[in-house]
Amino acid sequence: MWGRRFDKLLIAIIMLSLLVIMADSVESLSARYGRWLHALEWAFTLLFTVEYVLRLSCVRHPWRYARSFYGVIDLLAVLPTWAALLFPEASLLLGVRALRLMRIFRVFKLTRLVGEYALLGRALRAAARKILVFLSIVLMIVVVMGTLMYVVEGPANGYTNIPVAVYWAITTLATVGFGDITPHTALGKFIASVMMLLGWGVLAVPTGIITLEMSAQQRDAQREVTPRTCQECSTVGHDADASYCKRCGAKLPAYQQDP
Amino acid sequence: MWGRRFDKLLIAIIMLSLLVIMADSVESLSARYGRWLHALEWAFTLLFTVEYVLRLSCVRHPWRYARSFYGVIDLLAVLPTWAALLFPEASLLLGVRALRLMRIFRVFKLTRLVGEYALLGRALRAAARKILVFLSIVLMIVVVMGTLMYVVEGPANGYTNIPVAVYWAITTLATVGFGDITPHTALGKFIASVMMLLGWGVLAVPTGIITLEMSAQQRDAQREVTPRTCQECSTVGHDADASYCKRCGAKLPAYQQDP
Amino acid sequence: MWGRRFDKLLIAIIMLSLLVIMADSVESLSARYGRWLHALEWAFTLLFTVEYVLRLSCVRHPWRYARSFYGVIDLLAVLPTWAALLFPEASLLLGVRALRLMRIFRVFKLTRLVGEYALLGRALRAAARKILVFLSIVLMIVVVMGTLMYVVEGPANGYTNIPVAVYWAITTLATVGFGDITPHTALGKFIASVMMLLGWGVLAVPTGIITLEMSAQQRDAQREVTPRTCQECSTVGHDADASYCKRCGAKLPAYQQDP
Amino acid sequence: MWGRRFDKLLIAIIMLSLLVIMADSVESLSARYGRWLHALEWAFTLLFTVEYVLRLSCVRHPWRYARSFYGVIDLLAVLPTWAALLFPEASLLLGVRALRLMRIFRVFKLTRLVGEYALLGRALRAAARKILVFLSIVLMIVVVMGTLMYVVEGPANGYTNIPVAVYWAITTLATVGFGDITPHTALGKFIASVMMLLGWGVLAVPTGIITLEMSAQQRDAQREVTPRTCQECSTVGHDADASYCKRCGAKLPAYQQDP
Repeated sequence: MWGRRFDKLLIAIIMLSLLVIMADSVESLSARYGRWLHALEWAFTLLFTVEYVLRLSCVRHPWRYARSFYGVIDLLAVLPTWAALLFPEASLLLGVRALRLMRIFRVFKLTRLVGEYALLGRALRAAARKILVFLSIVLMIVVVMGTLMYVVEGPANGYTNIPVAVYWAITTLATVGFGDITPHTALGKFIASVMMLLGWGVLAVPTGIITLEMSAQQRDAQREVTPRTCQECSTVGHDADASYCKRCGAKLPAYQQDP
Repeated sequence: MWGRRFDKLLIAIIMLSLLVIMADSVESLSARYGRWLHALEWAFTLLFTVEYVLRLSCVRHPWRYARSFYGVIDLLAVLPTWAALLFPEASLLLGVRALRLMRIFRVFKLTRLVGEYALLGRALRAAARKILVFLSIVLMIVVVMGTLMYVVEGPANGYTNIPVAVYWAITTLATVGFGDITPHTALGKFIASVMMLLGWGVLAVPTGIITLEMSAQQRDAQREVTPRTCQECSTVGHDADASYCKRCGAKLPAYQQDP
Repeated sequence: MWGRRFDKLLIAIIMLSLLVIMADSVESLSARYGRWLHALEWAFTLLFTVEYVLRLSCVRHPWRYARSFYGVIDLLAVLPTWAALLFPEASLLLGVRALRLMRIFRVFKLTRLVGEYALLGRALRAAARKILVFLSIVLMIVVVMGTLMYVVEGPANGYTNIPVAVYWAITTLATVGFGDITPHTALGKFIASVMMLLGWGVLAVPTGIITLEMSAQQRDAQREVTPRTCQECSTVGHDADASYCKRCGAKLPAYQQDP
Repeated sequence: MWGRRFDKLLIAIIMLSLLVIMADSVESLSARYGRWLHALEWAFTLLFTVEYVLRLSCVRHPWRYARSFYGVIDLLAVLPTWAALLFPEASLLLGVRALRLMRIFRVFKLTRLVGEYALLGRALRAAARKILVFLSIVLMIVVVMGTLMYVVEGPANGYTNIPVAVYWAITTLATVGFGDITPHTALGKFIASVMMLLGWGVLAVPTGIITLEMSAQQRDAQREVTPRTCQECSTVGHDADASYCKRCGAKLPAYQQDP
């Protein structure tokens, strides 16, 4: 009960601290409310530091926690602000300012608090191998297509080198299409057209992979198989509404479903 | 019969009134036909006002209707035009002009008239929780990626502050890709490429969620389970072509399918 | 045999005639090969005219054919070229030049020749009603969002009137994102972001609809139900490998599958 | 064991050689590290040449290998660098430079090493016919829409000729939307909007096709049918947990599942 309430409070605090970081980057806001944002930033840093220290002292294996993913994030979330206190002159450098933005990784602490992410994560992990295979194919396509466009269009039309041409091929295949680089020659436009049309069919693949993976997981969760075992032949896997063993025909024990 | 014909008339009138609002915003049209558009606008407002008053006087609980979703929309659809009559000098102010455009909410009156929306709405509502979980993950990704790009590209390349960079990350992940902001540094282009490629797999998720949800709803609707009850053991849920109870083997009563 | 070969020839000729039309619109090509393209154009027109006259004289109901979809297309495919012969001075006007481009509708004659289109067409037609319902919801969303953006951004930022703002909303929701109009104010960018994120979930709907519709059609085609009728109880719908009636248990007649 | 380790090494070498080709095209890198990149390029060429010669001398039918897909790729991967040695003065010409970039085809050597591509390839090949039918419909739509936009917008708004207009139609339907060409007239914007809205429904088709094709392949792989044959009636295709023949009711032999 109190644990749950504490979690909800923590989510709210993390989100507020993210808003403060974002507001601080907007010039018009930081110019006007800079003092307030600074104060809030310190309040959050103190809070998270207390949380980090408490966690470190409460868990059974402090060192293991400190090296875990969330332990590192918890540390990264407070370190930059303290560092800015110790080396105030350094906070003017761009690199250090960037370091302070690492507080954004606090956002990942939210995943620990919402149980539902586990389900989605499992589906993605199950499909991960297939998606990686698929991505490697896409990578081959964009490398070849990018090089082709680099040869056809050339640096004069914005395809300054192969990596840039590959970046263009990715934006095109992913149907993002920024338009910062576009084919100018007739042949380039033709290749781009073929790429978009054929790419389509190929790119429906990840949707198919994930739909099937989620469907499989849902089926596993829904299939109502009782934990009953036939007392004659020890067969398991009987449907919830079965009364007789599907293997030997012996009477099954009654099944009590959870209310 | 008459109710259905009245509904169709109402749909046509609402659509016409929307066209008038749109035409009024086009300068070349409002300059030439402004007088006609104004007259039509008043005719529609009178019509909808009459409809609102009639509804209010016909329903059993007028107050409940007035506070309902459709009641509020019906009121919002006519109020701004009347307000412009009472305070003609105010209609020049931008804020009030915006208020008058609230007439566009008439479009939602259509949802009341087309029964099929309910079905689609149910599928979306069933999938809403999963989609919200998914959206929260996407939000985390865009916040982190946006901040990263803000650090890498900086205000000089159009990423003026974190919210703008997050807006860019959303346009990119959603494959919209306006191209008003694009990465200029090599590292920025690399991060954007990785984001598009990996984002793909993740973004196939809502399609999977909705396809499965619709599939589940369709299955429920299609599964032909007769309302017959076994007269021996009171089991329900027999297939339409079953003759014997699947639970106790007793003869089932004959099943008459609808012609 | 000869009919099939004739069809393949016709497809090739139609495609060639389309290439000629396209090449004619490219200034550099029409300047150099204008004479050849003109000659080819006349050859195709003569061929299609002969085909039209032959069809008209061969079919049982010439008038019905002349008014049918393909009859009108066949006529439209040849009329503009002949018209240019009769009124040579008119061929300089833009409108008449546009009329000549109506020959592009010849492309639809291809659908008649490829049998597989029927299958795809059936799936789309079955899903048509659901897709229309979905499209009408999308239309409501873009009308409201477009008006909102027109109020928020205003003509100064490119949203010159509501129809243009609705056009922008459609490009954004459809994830096309041309980038000719983009939000400039912070509020506008925020609304656009929400629109893209929420729009996503909604826009997975047509994919779901069509996947399910195709799945249903495939299932109907695949399910192997024999046309055998039980000679005791007249039940139909037995699986191909069933030997006994699933309803009364009587022996079924042997089933001969097509080789 | 050694074969597998050798494959992994080969993958790493191919990827490195691709990185060298890419880095060579970036002016700032080739200016500074040109000498090193050149040396690496020769090292890779020697390695691949040795591999090619070894393969040619080891396989039973050298000529068949040389003419096979992978044989041609292996040759193309080394030929351009050797050609540059033989005709050094030619390497300055653009055409020869393009030829040298054919080294990029080394990427396809990866497909030979990763067995999983075969699976995905089979699903795509099974769906290929349907996707081709679909693509031909899309081609018809973009040809007609492109011509329409060429007539409506004209060369003044960027639609310089029909092929360019068709290229625009493809970018729009594929939801890439570069934004290098956009409709400027009200009618053009309206046609583009209709195209995007209707195109949506149609474009969900390849996703549906591929999802179903993958689902079918997965089902075939998952369905646990034992290789047992009924010793009375020789029926095959029994479920893994069946004890009696589903056709004649005779006892089936015990089934030993693989551990």
